[in-house]
Amino acid sequence: MKNRIFIKDLKDNFTKEVILGGSVDARRDQGKMVFFDMRDMTGRVQCVVLPNHAEAIEIAKTIRPEWVLKVTALVNKRPEKNIKTDVLNGELELEVTAIEVLSRAQELPFASDAELNIDTLLDYRPLTLRRERERAIFKVQDAILYSYREFLKNEGFTEFRAPLIVGGDAEGGTEVFKFEYFYNQNANLATSPQLYKQMMVGVFERVFTVTNVFRAEKHSTTRHLNEYTSLDLEMGFIDGPKDVMKLETDLLRYMTEYLKNNCKKEFDTLGAEFPVIPLGEMIPSMKLSEAQKLISKETGVDCTTEPDLQPEHERWLSDYAKSEFNSDFIFITNFPRKKRPFYTMDDEEDEGTTKCYDLLFRGIELLSGNQREHRYDVLVEKMKWKGLDPEKFDFYLQAFKYGLPPHGGLAMGLERLTARFLNIPNIKEATLFPRDINRIDKRLSE
Amino acid sequence: MKNRIFIKDLKDNFTKEVILGGSVDARRDQGKMVFFDMRDMTGRVQCVVLPNHAEAIEIAKTIRPEWVLKVTALVNKRPEKNIKTDVLNGELELEVTAIEVLSRAQELPFASDAELNIDTLLDYRPLTLRRERERAIFKVQDAILYSYREFLKNEGFTEFRAPLIVGGDAEGGTEVFKFEYFYNQNANLATSPQLYKQMMVGVFERVFTVTNVFRAEKHSTTRHLNEYTSLDLEMGFIDGPKDVMKLETDLLRYMTEYLKNNCKKEFDTLGAEFPVIPLGEMIPSMKLSEAQKLISKETGVDCTTEPDLQPEHERWLSDYAKSEFNSDFIFITNFPRKKRPFYTMDDEEDEGTTKCYDLLFRGIELLSGNQREHRYDVLVEKMKWKGLDPEKFDFYLQAFKYGLPPHGGLAMGLERLTARFLNIPNIKEATLFPRDINRIDKRLSE
Repeated sequence: MKNRIFIKDLKDNFTKEVILGGSVDARRDQGKMVFFDMRDMTGRVQCVVLPNHAEAIEIAKTIRPEWVLKVTALVNKRPEKNIKTDVLNGELELEVTAIEVLSRAQELPFASDAELNIDTLLDYRPLTLRRERERAIFKVQDAILYSYREFLKNEGFTEFRAPLIVGGDAEGGTEVFKFEYFYNQNANLATSPQLYKQMMVGVFERVFTVTNVFRAEKHSTTRHLNEYTSLDLEMGFIDGPKDVMKLETDLLRYMTEYLKNNCKKEFDTLGAEFPVIPLGEMIPSMKLSEAQKLISKETGVDCTTEPDLQPEHERWLSDYAKSEFNSDFIFITNFPRKKRPFYTMDDEEDEGTTKCYDLLFRGIELLSGNQREHRYDVLVEKMKWKGLDPEKFDFYLQAFKYGLPPHGGLAMGLERLTARFLNIPNIKEATLFPRDINRIDKRLSE
Repeated sequence: MKNRIFIKDLKDNFTKEVILGGSVDARRDQGKMVFFDMRDMTGRVQCVVLPNHAEAIEIAKTIRPEWVLKVTALVNKRPEKNIKTDVLNGELELEVTAIEVLSRAQELPFASDAELNIDTLLDYRPLTLRRERERAIFKVQDAILYSYREFLKNEGFTEFRAPLIVGGDAEGGTEVFKFEYFYNQNANLATSPQLYKQMMVGVFERVFTVTNVFRAEKHSTTRHLNEYTSLDLEMGFIDGPKDVMKLETDLLRYMTEYLKNNCKKEFDTLGAEFPVIPLGEMIPSMKLSEAQKLISKETGVDCTTEPDLQPEHERWLSDYAKSEFNSDFIFITNFPRKKRPFYTMDDEEDEGTTKCYDLLFRGIELLSGNQREHRYDVLVEKMKWKGLDPEKFDFYLQAFKYGLPPHGGLAMGLERLTARFLNIPNIKEATLFPRDINRIDKRLSE
């Protein structure tokens, strides 16, 4: 739009006539005058149409929420008593001299500040995403993506694109969507870029990707999605899993600083608090067996023989990390061999466990990672032990056959990260267009 | 790896003892001494093992290409007569004092510089991607991705994640992969994020995404893929398609500058030349009808009644742009209504045509874009005219029903962009793990 200025720049244009483009947020007809709030991608401003602008006020009386306007206006200082400090454009008001309607909107099905249940929120997603709360969530998501990539670029990582059409249920352990490829050949939708990022370690040593992945699990919970965005990274030449945990610590620090500097308004809108990472080289860490002993000792419930943490124990450990280390995060390492995928390296110094970790954040598992088995012969044996057929993995195994450095990595779900950082209980609210057992955009039962 | 330094930093460490990690590129056993080249993610260096380091030379005699090593070495200046200028580390040589083998490699199926046909290149992808030429291609791809996002961020765009599981063959006009979702409901794999990015214009005005998309077309050519990466963007409050063409011009300028500053070595490796964009506000542009008249006049072949450009005419127009404007690019606009998707806006000033454009680059269509129809009623009519059922699009149509600004956008295939910029004839060479009618990693016939 020619000569358009953004709402955030109004304050530099006092007494000037400006051109704006935006959507109507709210309108109050006060008889002779019409007030309305307009928003664009940079902010919001109050507009007033006075009776002396006859053509403009005639149009102003017809406009409704979500109409899209081109507005010509004078940037006026508000009278001293009407100034709102701490609000964007709280010191100014637009005196509208001309309005052009670019797009009309039908009457809205609900008020823009109505409390909506999750199904209504999702049924009307193209509309509800325009709400302040929703825009804040996805601005934060954009910032998470940006800071993730920026940090890794600074650390020498190369971005790569992983394919999502895959030939086999490579990793096992999860349900996959299957479909017919050409010549009656079966294909699957990728559940992770795991095997590709390991192959890429042989090419660029340090690699990352951001990609959709798919799970065909029939869950209907506030924690599961059938399609989500995975932030994956992998690095070569590590001495052990601690190198990956150190990188993850630095990544979360970088991300948190970036969010503090760029998303304060959004965190305020959502009433969320920035993650707290304690000083020191690394987020506190504890072996699963140590954690279980501690929980048993402190709570009296013996969980020392369990292969994994119960949700209440994850919460207990997070509380412990908070009070003991003033940390919102804690690593739990050395989960048993049986429960981890074939590519996880065994920890020979702690029989039956692997060089893996989970990262707990405010009571919930945020992500997991591990050192991978890079030795070809050992990896093939491990596959067999897991009941997998190495021949089906011969493409992937080439990377190992032809030499791969010791390496490790991790994966985080973008939507989970967004939801946890913003303290949003249902992950679907942190997903633009969630797919679940009952929904692809619209409810499937319809 | 503790205390590891990167090969690119050796030149700052003359006379010091350093620790390196990397892969063996080549080895020459000269009896008493062993020479080998080692590479890491930052470069390549020549190493020599002298007989006085007994343990190291014993190991050095066993090492083979692609073995992964940890090496301790002294950074020596080369004798004056052996210095190679213009080569990384051409002035130094590593005197290896200790070697630790981190990973062995089996004998390679071919020499690292062997000319390979496309099938062998892809059959051995985890290995062939390590070749200098392949690493150069995907370093450039990484730089294209980075500069694309960086430019758009500077222009106020917000990144979003589009779902790839979709409910209908939304756009029509292309074959889709179908699969069974839950409760016997059918789902499709997305052929583009088009409808979602338009919905997102109502939320953030300017949006972009990078995502895999899928085409079930049974092509087997050097130009087609069944899965590729789409760089999509969409912007609101445009006055016409020229606003998008202007943005695209600026984006390509930014990208070209970024590549010049960061990928000179890679372009040299591939013998490729940087794109040339002429000075001036915008890449030259021409209506299809004008282009056809010009071609007819200059070549004597009448193509003025054709709805599209033939490949030879795309080449002719590119040559014309090069000689007339010294431009590797030329926009061709106003293709006929019939050949463009339903969401393309008609150009009322040029009957029967639409507000769309293709961008030709060195003889081939690089991308296309257009202004979209943002008026709800007109869009619904256009759908019907195209034989589509608006009810099937009711989720998408909400964005229009509730007010959407005039908007437009474009999409580019990352692999095509990479191949064209680097003058690589077969798009599969610019795709890490290409999927085609005959291949998912391995050949399907196997």
